[in-house]
Parts: sequence; structure tokens; C-alpha cells
Amino acid sequence: LFQLETEANALVNFQQYSSQLPPFYESSSHILHTEVLQQLTDLIRSHPSWSVAHLAVELGIRECFHHSRIISCANSTENEEGCTPLHLACRKGDREILMELVQYCHAQMDVTDSNGETAFHYAVQSDNSQVLQLLGKNASAGLNQLNNQGLTPLHLACQLGKQEMVRVLLLCNARCNIMGPSGYPIHTAMKFSQKGCAEMIISMDSNQIHSKDPRYGASPLHWAKNAEMARLLLKRGCDVNSTSSVGNTALHVAVMRNRFDCVMVLLTHGANADARGEHGNTPLHLAMSKDNVEMVKALIVFGAEVDTPNDSGETPAFIASRISRLVTRKALLTLLRTVGADYRSPLLQGVSAEQCSATAQHSFFSLERSQPPPISLNNLVTYWPGNQHPPRVSLVPLETAPEEMPLGFLQSATQARLDGGPGARRQMELQDLVHISRARKPAFILSSMRDEKRTHDHLLCLDGGGVKGLVIIQLLIAIEKASGIATKDLFDWVAGTSTGGILALAILHSKSMAYMRGVYFRMKDEVFRGSRPYESGPLEEFLKREFGEHTKMTDVKKPKVMLTGTLSDRQPAELHLFRNYEAPECVREPRFNQNVNLKPPTHPSEQLVWRAARSSGAAPTYFRPNGRFLDGGLLANNPTLDAMTEIHEYNQDMIRKGQGNKVKKLSIVVSLGTGRSPQVPVTCVDVFRPSNPWELAKTVFGAKELGKMVVDCCTDPDGRAVDRARAWCEMVGIQYFRLNPQLGTDIMLDEVNDTVLVDALWETEVYIYEHREQFQKLIQLLLSP
Amino acid sequence: LFQLETEANALVNFQQYSSQLPPFYESSSHILHTEVLQQLTDLIRSHPSWSVAHLAVELGIRECFHHSRIISCANSTENEEGCTPLHLACRKGDREILMELVQYCHAQMDVTDSNGETAFHYAVQSDNSQVLQLLGKNASAGLNQLNNQGLTPLHLACQLGKQEMVRVLLLCNARCNIMGPSGYPIHTAMKFSQKGCAEMIISMDSNQIHSKDPRYGASPLHWAKNAEMARLLLKRGCDVNSTSSVGNTALHVAVMRNRFDCVMVLLTHGANADARGEHGNTPLHLAMSKDNVEMVKALIVFGAEVDTPNDSGETPAFIASRISRLVTRKALLTLLRTVGADYRSPLLQGVSAEQCSATAQHSFFSLERSQPPPISLNNLVTYWPGNQHPPRVSLVPLETAPEEMPLGFLQSATQARLDGGPGARRQMELQDLVHISRARKPAFILSSMRDEKRTHDHLLCLDGGGVKGLVIIQLLIAIEKASGIATKDLFDWVAGTSTGGILALAILHSKSMAYMRGVYFRMKDEVFRGSRPYESGPLEEFLKREFGEHTKMTDVKKPKVMLTGTLSDRQPAELHLFRNYEAPECVREPRFNQNVNLKPPTHPSEQLVWRAARSSGAAPTYFRPNGRFLDGGLLANNPTLDAMTEIHEYNQDMIRKGQGNKVKKLSIVVSLGTGRSPQVPVTCVDVFRPSNPWELAKTVFGAKELGKMVVDCCTDPDGRAVDRARAWCEMVGIQYFRLNPQLGTDIMLDEVNDTVLVDALWETEVYIYEHREQFQKLIQLLLSP
Repeated sequence: LFQLETEANALVNFQQYSSQLPPFYESSSHILHTEVLQQLTDLIRSHPSWSVAHLAVELGIRECFHHSRIISCANSTENEEGCTPLHLACRKGDREILMELVQYCHAQMDVTDSNGETAFHYAVQSDNSQVLQLLGKNASAGLNQLNNQGLTPLHLACQLGKQEMVRVLLLCNARCNIMGPSGYPIHTAMKFSQKGCAEMIISMDSNQIHSKDPRYGASPLHWAKNAEMARLLLKRGCDVNSTSSVGNTALHVAVMRNRFDCVMVLLTHGANADARGEHGNTPLHLAMSKDNVEMVKALIVFGAEVDTPNDSGETPAFIASRISRLVTRKALLTLLRTVGADYRSPLLQGVSAEQCSATAQHSFFSLERSQPPPISLNNLVTYWPGNQHPPRVSLVPLETAPEEMPLGFLQSATQARLDGGPGARRQMELQDLVHISRARKPAFILSSMRDEKRTHDHLLCLDGGGVKGLVIIQLLIAIEKASGIATKDLFDWVAGTSTGGILALAILHSKSMAYMRGVYFRMKDEVFRGSRPYESGPLEEFLKREFGEHTKMTDVKKPKVMLTGTLSDRQPAELHLFRNYEAPECVREPRFNQNVNLKPPTHPSEQLVWRAARSSGAAPTYFRPNGRFLDGGLLANNPTLDAMTEIHEYNQDMIRKGQGNKVKKLSIVVSLGTGRSPQVPVTCVDVFRPSNPWELAKTVFGAKELGKMVVDCCTDPDGRAVDRARAWCEMVGIQYFRLNPQLGTDIMLDEVNDTVLVDALWETEVYIYEHREQFQKLIQLLLSP
Repeated sequence: LFQLETEANALVNFQQYSSQLPPFYESSSHILHTEVLQQLTDLIRSHPSWSVAHLAVELGIRECFHHSRIISCANSTENEEGCTPLHLACRKGDREILMELVQYCHAQMDVTDSNGETAFHYAVQSDNSQVLQLLGKNASAGLNQLNNQGLTPLHLACQLGKQEMVRVLLLCNARCNIMGPSGYPIHTAMKFSQKGCAEMIISMDSNQIHSKDPRYGASPLHWAKNAEMARLLLKRGCDVNSTSSVGNTALHVAVMRNRFDCVMVLLTHGANADARGEHGNTPLHLAMSKDNVEMVKALIVFGAEVDTPNDSGETPAFIASRISRLVTRKALLTLLRTVGADYRSPLLQGVSAEQCSATAQHSFFSLERSQPPPISLNNLVTYWPGNQHPPRVSLVPLETAPEEMPLGFLQSATQARLDGGPGARRQMELQDLVHISRARKPAFILSSMRDEKRTHDHLLCLDGGGVKGLVIIQLLIAIEKASGIATKDLFDWVAGTSTGGILALAILHSKSMAYMRGVYFRMKDEVFRGSRPYESGPLEEFLKREFGEHTKMTDVKKPKVMLTGTLSDRQPAELHLFRNYEAPECVREPRFNQNVNLKPPTHPSEQLVWRAARSSGAAPTYFRPNGRFLDGGLLANNPTLDAMTEIHEYNQDMIRKGQGNKVKKLSIVVSLGTGRSPQVPVTCVDVFRPSNPWELAKTVFGAKELGKMVVDCCTDPDGRAVDRARAWCEMVGIQYFRLNPQLGTDIMLDEVNDTVLVDALWETEVYIYEHREQFQKLIQLLLSP
């Protein structure tokens, strides 16, 4: 039965066997199987220090636990790890043995092994949550015990990703606020990116999402290591801008750790791209040393200022100029120059106070040019004729807390700068710069500039283009920033197609464009999932969430909004406008005789907003049609001409109805595009009857190219549509502005790659900078009464 | 060897054989074959009256003709038909026997058979033209002999369709001007629709195409029984309007014979639809009794007047009202009413002269409303304020011969009518009516109305639509008729797309629209041959023929013309305008950076006219692209918006260049369509991922429907394009006219069915009548200085 290796060993082993075996055959009611004996002898050989109770647990023979010899060593710690049989039973996940130990052997529950771990620590590592459940029912002494690594069983479960164990522990009232080496259990779950565990903790104790670890004062979000973990917390409502004890936000941390995916999730969930953290550094300061150009772009695109100085007075641009790695430095500096940043330090070392002051002053003016200078409230001040100060209008802070933004700062700062003599102190100037930089935030609504005061109408037109609607958003943010007025109040008419239609509704419903930017980045991943045509469920869910399931078009009346849709239940298809006002009556004979088979369109007061948005944006082959509607882009991808037609007909109708006095002349048309794809040469759009296989291949290719060309031709929102609108406006004396950045690549309607989209927005920023004079003129006209 | 039926017969036969056989075996150098003998005996039995010479010819044994017995009966007419052996040899086409007969037997050439036919008549019926040739070389006595039916051999050849025989006869100097029962040989060829023969005669003697048969005085064209025969003559340059001795044209005959295809060929080759023939009947008079509504439509569409009285004073409309067959009468009267015809007789029987005069006068005014009343020069007279007579402008007759159209007739006729008392004579009034009716022809150019006198610019825009360009032509004819001025002189700018572009060039090059109507009808059969994409050769040949192979765009400078084309060597494709003037310089930054790979478009002074037309009209899948150009319809199927854009930019450019004084404001825009297809409900434009074969089928169908819808949507020249243009014009204070008839069916770009096209033109005429007030207003505005 026993094979011995040497005689000496054999003797020792025999000794052991003879002392250890009796309890097993004595307690057994029948002869032990050879297999069991073999197992037992192997165990004795490999674990010579184990007590018979340990051996019995490992063997899993219930009967043994009634044997006195085994009961006597039920709490033995004769084991390499210093654990009791109870520990072993928990690790093994053997519920029955555990019950034997507890009920017959009266095993102690709170014994710790040499590692300081209780049975709970062991049970967490097993695969059987019932053991843990049983354990928790019988004892709670070791439930919150820290082991020698400082981990409670809950920490351990989080670290190991044992979601069910976490659930059981929490049900047993394990505490969530015991500090481990990485903070509370929730932080451990975040640190090890254990999604299930983090979700479990938050679902059992929603406060945990806000809990800060005692060591860094960091929220779970600070600990998020990837996009998925960050998204989980943000969806559950954590504060995206909460700060650690040194004042860093999660964005600071994500940037420091060079986690681009996290950065994008945070930014698209409203993280303040310009938050000042430790040492006064913004995320952009930190990004500058990370050799990650995309991250720098993303931060700037989401509103980070390139000229905010940190506590040492260094701007992000200045830090970029000191980067040791040449390639990175060059790339960053080129990047910054394209949006007009000045990367000289406002505080040069070894220069006299006077010189420094002069330099700083020069630098200040340079900074004025930096980023989009026309879109600075400061710049606009000069447009109020004969007045260096803004007019005495009521300034209503929007986002910034009042204490951070004293109303008088602008004048005083300007004053200090203008004094600018030898007496001006370095510290003062730094403050000055910080304030000025802050003043350029989109912080104010000039409530005097409401449309009622205007004598002329303004029209805003937004092209279609799917996710490229982000470009429009970025342009609108620039206009809002520069004018200090919400888009809603700058325009009397807003027309949009497809994505532009969604944005028109967002404007109508007072959603900020910065918010919509985040929404778009988040939405695309949900909506453009799978392959074309996409499921329309997620898009519809999103629209209902944003605009309400029952909101009607006429629920908000100002500005007047129209969305283009293509009524495709007839041939030829017809343009339909979804309006939030009564359609003008038509006095001309109808184009076709009334066809009884065609039901009339829904009246505006009955038209659901989300349905209008969905109908306008039903791009064929991307989404299924919404009922009888196809994408408005088929007929008016650039809605300007149709909007002007509509306004004309509306005004004519008003005049006919004797309300001519209410009619205002259209004076400004602003048409925003979703970015222009680069022009590329095309070689083959020929379709002919093939006479051999090679020609057949060419024909198939040609037909495809031709199809693309025809559709692109017809729906090109940027070609003739713009020339026609411009000529029309010029003929009538309407100011026409077409803003549409040239993009470096052809971006699809359903692009989901963050990097590609950030690049597009970056190009938009560059475009805004390069066309700053045009923007300046536009803002000036929009603000003139 | 010989099988006999009865003994009596056997005896008779033996008698015959014994007398007839000797010459054959005597002349033969060897024993006759059984087969020859058998043949011979059979012949003798079946033709007991034949001489041995006849039998020898039929047997075809040359040696026999040296036998004295045979030589002796060489001119025998012992034959059922009374023909000589020579006749038989000719009919048999046996050249060698013929030579034997002529050389050895001295057979007479001018013997006629009992039917009065010479050997030539017989030779014509053979299959061997060499026999006829040989015959012609030796004799000419019977060459022009009339047989008992009055046919010369040439007549006979034409009747039998023996083209080669005709050729040989003509080479032998057979006369073409011998009268047969159906006229000259050419007339016989026409009567029997022998195309090859007719062609042969004309190619040998081109004068024959004009030759009139002595009986009816009818030209070959009068005799044409089908489209092919008529086309043959017209292509060779016959006079389409030549009259027979009673005064009927070929069109009269074709109508009388109810030959719709001939009618169409004649009309499209310029036949005068209103020619007065026998008894003063126009073709329309004759058509009224033919129970052929299509033919009536075709005639009216091609300019036949419904109110021209014949010598009995009956108008076509009146005849229609007297048709016995109820269905036809109703159909015709409904038809006529839709274009406003009055079908009451101007001369009612049994009414006193006075009453009659009054009725006639009433009828006259009714007639004024008939057909397109606004488009009557007479009507326009009233627009010259305070003047019942047209102004003293020089009236230059265009088509009508001066003696037929005395300059003063209008005043005198009007005078006579206004007097209209009891003294006014019936005959006089009839004359009057005829004259007035004639006055409504497009006969005058008011040369004082040249563009130099205008203070404002007029723009004409012509849509694309392939063969449906006929609708535009019909509309322009109406405008020209009503205004009395050529389109070329009514407008300062003409813009056209595709077919509209071709018509714009036709206007520029002073081609009459009536001419172009014929051209289009003729062209379609040549161009739309085979399957799509069509060979572009015929189209290009046609364009070169019409506009010249080397004509450049700038060769004619007034009016300014632009054709739209789609530059498709780049993505996105761009609109290119083919101009006959310098393109306005662009001051804006170019939309894209100059791409060195793209060659600039040809300068107008280098641009070939036919190429421009071809490029504008390269409808994808219909024709191969012309180089890098695709159909202008892809970007501007209705060119109005782009024309207005162009004119604005041109004027701005002029002003920039200090030539602002030359700039005239646009005051009228006339936009003509190619007919509007009926609106039809569409059920499925959905494209989705199929999950089973039935869904797959639906998807494929959906994709096709969707493709059609997208293209139709984008290139619809009649939907939003019109609304936009109207709103633009109204905003600027430009008079905008959109004329586009609703058609009953969806007509393809490449429709070749004459009936379908005639129906479309008919619908156009109805549209013109129904919109007569709009037309009247348009003409008034076009003519005001």
C-alpha cells in the first residue's frame, strides 16, 4: 500500500502515519477506501505539521469530526500558515465541514492566522459564497479585521474582483469605511478596476460613490484607471469635478497618468478642463509634460486655456517651451501657435522689475491674440463706441461662483495694467493675468440683448452631418463665448437639418452647447453600435431623455425653429418642415392635386419634439426611416435656402393677414457647417456596358463611385448651396456668414473614434482663430441693436 | 421509258414526241440522258403548244440552238402567253441560252407577248441581272415598252422591289418619266414601299425626288406609305410641303390614309400642319373624320389651327361636331374644348345674312379665345395703351411669302369686321377669318424690341430632362407666337441644363423652336438606340451637325448663355458653367486649396459649343461621361438659382471693375420645366439588415426604391428649387414665372414613343391654355421696355 523511498524516510513516515491515522479509521463506519488512504498518506507526507483536524478538513470526511482526537485539535494552529481547520474549511469552501466544525467542535471564529487573516479572509478566496454567508451568520468578530497587509475581507474581495463575496459581506454588514492601504474598499475596487465590485458597493451604499479615501482625499473617480470604470461612476452620479485634498480633480489624475480614454470620459461628462489643482496647475499644465499631443488637443478643445498661469506663474504654453524632448516640444509649440498661444513666460528670470513689467505687459497683449481672441468679452468692450468699459447692463453670472468673480475685477485689473509703471508688482500682475484669463470664460448673459430690442431678424442655419455636428457645437460655443449671450437669444430663427435639427432643438430648449458637446461624444458610442443600418432604439431613447417623451414642438416658442424632413411616402418626395409655430398658409395652387391616400403632416402643436428630431435625422442606410420621413439632408442638407424661403413665405402670410407691422426684415444669416472634407481627385465615375471581366469590375467600381458622387453632389451642403445663399443675401442686403472649417480627413457621419473627433474639433479651433476677424464682425453685427 | 395512261392519250403523245424529239437527239453529240429525256417528255406533255425552240430554252441545252429546226422557230410565239423563246430565256435568267438565241438564231428583241411585254419585262422578273444587262447591250427597242397594264420594265422592277434590276435598267438608259397607272417608276416604287428601288432611282437621277406623277401631280412623298419611305425621301432633300395638283400636301394624304407614323415623320420634318389643300381643307379638317385622336393631337401640337375654315366655311372643330360616331365625336370635342376651341360653325345654314354676320362676329371673338388666346398677336395689340392698332414698327415677314401676307391686311380686315353691317358680305368675312387666323402664326419680328432698348435684364432658365425638352420647346413656341419676337431677343441671359443647355445654344444660334421640335423628334430615334448607357457617337454627331464642329462658345455673344456641367474629376464634384462670356472673377478665397492635379476648365473662347452641350447633357447611366464632366442636372437640374447667383456675381464683378453703369437690374426670371411627373404614393424606401429571404428581397427592393428616391429628390427641378427661386425673386422684387405642365404619366428621359411624346405636348398645350392669363402677363412684361 505504501511505497517508501528510503528506509530512514520510511521509518519517520511510519511513525507519523501510526500517530495520525487512527482517528480516521476509528471514526469511519466502514473500511477506508484505498484512494482515501492514499490521499491521506500523501497529505501527511506533504504537510507533516498539520494536525489531524487540518487533515480531516482537507480530506473532507464529515464523520471524523465526531472523533475526540479531532475535536481536541479543532482550534489547532499547527499549520505552516498558522491557520485553524476553520480557516482551511473556509478557503476550501466546504460548507458541511464548516458546519461540523462550528456545531460539534466549537471551533473559534476569531482566530487569525500568521498573516493576521480571519476565516472571513479565507472564505472570500473560496468559490462558495454560501460558506461566507454561513460564517457571517455565526460570527462577526473577524468580519472587519484588517490583515497584516491592512485589508479587511471586503478589501480583499474587491481586490480579487469577487462581486458575490462583496455582496455577501455587505449583507453581513461589513463596514465600507475601513481604511486600507489604498483607501476604502470602493477605492480598492477602483484601483484594481473591479467593475462588478464597485457597482456592488455603490448599489448597496450609494454614498460610497462620494467617499474620499483618508490618505489623498480622493474620490473613487480619482482612482478610476480606465474609461469603463470612470463611466460607471459618472453614470451613477458622482461629482466629476470633486477635488482631492491637494486640490486635484480626477481629470488632473487622468492626465498625470496619461490615460487618454479616461480624460475623454471625464471631459465629455463635464469635467472642468481648466480646473486649477495642486500648485495651481490646470490639467493642461500637467499634460504638457506627457508627450501626448492628442491629450493636449482634447483639453484645449474642451475649453482649457493655454495661458492660465500656475502658482509659479508658468502658463501651459511656457511649460511646453521647456519640454526636454525636442520632437514633443516642437509639436506642442506648433500646435499652440496654430491657435495663437504665446508660449513666452510672463515671469522671466533675471530681469529687472521694470523690464519684467514691460515684458509682462507685452505678453499680455500677445495673450490677447492667443486662442480665439475675437471671442473674448474683453475684446468686445472696444466695440461699444466711445466707451472703454462695458455698458451698464446687468451681468448675471452663469457658472462661476460669485466670490471667484468679483464684478469690479475687470476695471481694476485693467487699471492696474494700464498704470503698469515701476510700482506695479510682479504678484499683482500675475493676479491680473489670472483674472483676465478667467474673464474670457463664457460667464455672462447680457440680458439687455434680448430679441425684443432688435429691429431686424437673425437666422441661424445648421447643416446635417451626423456626429460631425460637434463642429457646429464648437463654432456655437465660440460665438457664445465671444458674445457672452446664449445662442437662443442671439437668433430669431433657427433652422437645422438632421444633426443640425437636433442642435436647433437643443438651442430652443436652452441646453448649453458645452453640455451638448459632451452629450454627442457620449451618444455616438451608444447610437453607432453594430453595423449600418443602426438600431434606432438608442437614438430614440437618447432623444426622449434629452427633450422629454411628451414634449411638443410648440411647447417652447422662441426662437422660431424649423427642422427639415423628407416626406418620402410619395414620389417625388417633398420637403416637410417641423416647426414650433404655425406654418404659413399657401396662397398658390398646390403643386399636385390632393392625393387622398396621403395623410397630412402632424400639426406643430401635436408634433412630438423627439420624433421631429428623429425624422429629420433619419439618414438613409444609417438609420431606418422614421415612418414616412427620410433625412432632411436629402432635400436640404444645408437648410439656409429653405429657411429663407420659409421666412419669406411666413412674412408674406403675416402681411396678408394684416400683421405686417410685426414683420421684421431679415438682416443676418449665419450658416454653420459640419466641416468640409478635403477635395480629392476622382479617376473613374464611368458606367458602361462591360465586354469582359476586367471591364465588368471597372463598371461595378464605377457604379459605386458614381452612386457616391451623385449622393455627395446632391447633398453637398457646402458647394452651390453656399454660393446661392450668399448671392441671395447680397442681393437683398442681408449679412451672410458661412462658417465651415476645412477638415484634414473625410469624417463619416458615424465616426466613433475619439481621436478623430478631437482632431476635427481642433481643426475647428484653428479655423476659428484664423477667421477671427470674420467672427469679430459677426459678433459685432449680432450685438448691434 | 414512257408511262402511258390510256391508249388514246398514248397515241396522241407519241405523235407529239415523234415530231418534237428529233431536233434534240440530232443536235446532241452523245446519247441523251434518261433524266433529260424524262424532262423533255414531261415538258411536251404539259406545254403541248410550245415550239421546239421554247422547249430547248426551258431545257437549257445550248447545242440545240445550232439545229435548223430550232433556229427556224426562234421567233415562234407558239406559246400560251404568246411569248418567244427569247422571253422565256430572259425569264429563266439563262445568259448562255440568251446569247445563243441572239447570236445564232437572230431572235427578234422587240416581240411582245400576248400581255404586251417585251423580253425586258421578262428579264426583270428573273434573278440574274446579267441577262438584263446583256439584253440592254443588244437591244433597246423594248426597254421602255409599256405592257398591257401600262408598266415599263422599270415600273415592273420597282413594283417587284428588284433594286439591282432597277440599277441595270437605268444604266441601260431606261426612262424614268414614262407614265404608268401609278405614275412614274419612282411613284411605283413608293406605292409598293420598295425602299431599295426608290433609293436607286434617286441616286441615279436625283431629280426624280421632285418628279410629280402626271395623274395627280403628286410627288413621291405623297406616295410614301410608311415612315421609312417618307424618311428616305426627306433625308434626300425632297420638299416636304410640295402640293399635288389639287393642292394637297403629303401631310394631307398621310392624314387621309390615316398613317400616323407618316404624319409624324412629315410633321417632324417641317410639314406645314396648317396647309390648305383641296377644298381649303387643312390636314386637321381631314383628320377629324379619321377616328384617330392621336393624329388630331399631333396636328394641333404641331401648330394646326382648330379654327381655320375650309372653302365651305367649316372649321375643323365644326367638322368634329358633326362626326357620326358618338364616341369619337365626344372624344374630339372634349379634346378641342381643353385647348379652348369653339366648334360652332361660323356659317350656319338657313340664317339670314344679318344674323349670320352677327354669329360670325360672335364666333370670331370666340375664336379669339380658342387655342392659346394670349399667344395671339391680335390680343397683344390691346396692350399698347391708347392704340387699337399695332405701333408703327417694321414688320419683317419670317416665313410667309409677302404676296400671301399683305402688310395692310390686319387693319383692313379689322376694319371690315368692325363695320360688320348688313353690307358686309359672307365671302368677305370668310376671307377675314382666314386672314386673322393666319395672322396668328409666328410670323413677325418686332425688330424695335431688341435688348438694347431695355432698362432691365431678363433671364430664361431651362431645366434638364432629356427628350422631355420638347415641353420647353412647346412653351417657347407659345411665347414666341404670342410676343411675335424670337426668344433670342426677349432675353438677356439664358441658362440651361442638359437638354435645356442644348436648347439654350439653339436659341443663341438663332434656331427656331419649331425647327428644334422636329430635330428632337428625329434625334431621339438615332440617339436612344440600343440600351443604356447609349453610344454617345450619334448624340455627338447630331450636336456637331447642328452647331458646327469648330464653333466656339464665344462666337455668338448675345444673349449671354450659360450651361451647367458637373466637374466630376474631384470629390466633392463642382458646378462648372459653360459660358459665352468671360467668367466673373472671384474675390473670395477659393473653397479648396488649388489642387495641382486638377487642370483648370477650358476658357470660353476655346470651348467648343458641341462639347459644352455634350458635357451638360451627360446624364449618368444614360450616356458615358464626357471627359471629366457629368450631367449638370446633378447639381442644378433647374438652373435658376445658379443662374441668379452667376448674374449677381457677374454684376458685382462689373461694379468692382468700374463698369457699374453697364449693369442692369434683373427684372424678369422665366423658368421653364420639362413637365412634371404625377405624384404617386410610395410604400417602401426602407433599407435594413434582412434576417430571412423575404426580408432580403424587400431590402433589395427598398435599396432600389431608395436609390431612385434619393436621385429624384436631389435632382427634382420642380420642388424646392422653384420655391426657393420664387422666394428669392419676390424678396428682390423680380418677376418670377415658373411654367411647367403637369403630365399624365412619368415620361423617361429616353422615351422614343411618338404617341407618348405627342401626348406630353398636348398636355403642354392644355397647360398653356389653362394658364393663358399668366402667359399674357408674362408677354406684357417681356415687351414693356
